[in-house]
Amino acid sequence: MPSPDKEMDKVLLIGLGGFLGAVCRFLICEHVDGQLGILSVNVLGSFMLGMIMYDAEYLSFIGPKGRLAFGTGFIGAFTTFSTFAVQSFSMAFLPALGNISANLFLTLTGVFFGRSFIKALSSREI
Amino acid sequence: MPSPDKEMDKVLLIGLGGFLGAVCRFLICEHVDGQLGILSVNVLGSFMLGMIMYDAEYLSFIGPKGRLAFGTGFIGAFTTFSTFAVQSFSMAFLPALGNISANLFLTLTGVFFGRSFIKALSSREI
Repeated sequence: MPSPDKEMDKVLLIGLGGFLGAVCRFLICEHVDGQLGILSVNVLGSFMLGMIMYDAEYLSFIGPKGRLAFGTGFIGAFTTFSTFAVQSFSMAFLPALGNISANLFLTLTGVFFGRSFIKALSSREI
Repeated sequence: MPSPDKEMDKVLLIGLGGFLGAVCRFLICEHVDGQLGILSVNVLGSFMLGMIMYDAEYLSFIGPKGRLAFGTGFIGAFTTFSTFAVQSFSMAFLPALGNISANLFLTLTGVFFGRSFIKALSSREI
């Protein structure tokens, strides 16, 4: 059972990250319209989360608190599934298929490049 | 061009919603492990966003500020794409396919039920 103080610290870190992540998503989507805005934040966020997750494995450059604030809070809130689902649902069949394929393919590719970047960094003796 | 004050109001509403959405996602995922936690928040959030989007069309129960705070902020941050992408990327092929299919099918179904719920409400003369 985590102590109430530590749990509150976690909640605050994630909340602050979530505040900034949601705002950054909004600001990007104000300038990149419709499904392209959501696709952009999802791909960018998946690349960043790929780096963070594999950082924990290879580099440990970011500590557990940084992962909570930046990974769970910021990037978790920056990327979104619900708007992607509503947009895809309201499209005709072929555009919906294109939107779903683009989000799946490009976010998985984003994670791959995030991991590759961290692996390349970790193979250099710093 | 929106006035700086109105833009700041929007940013604060979305940020506060994002704070709460990220925290609620974390609290649920603390109790529902791994990909099932992310699946749960994505499906629940898609159902809620389905209601909000179609509320704007049929009922107008929630105003523009409520949609920003609750839709873009809270639900946007509550659901997430990046963790779903990292989890799917790190799975073997068949479990990954299962996770992707479950998220796609159940979130789209969630939007459908959210819309149906609002349409059913709007057909009653309140």
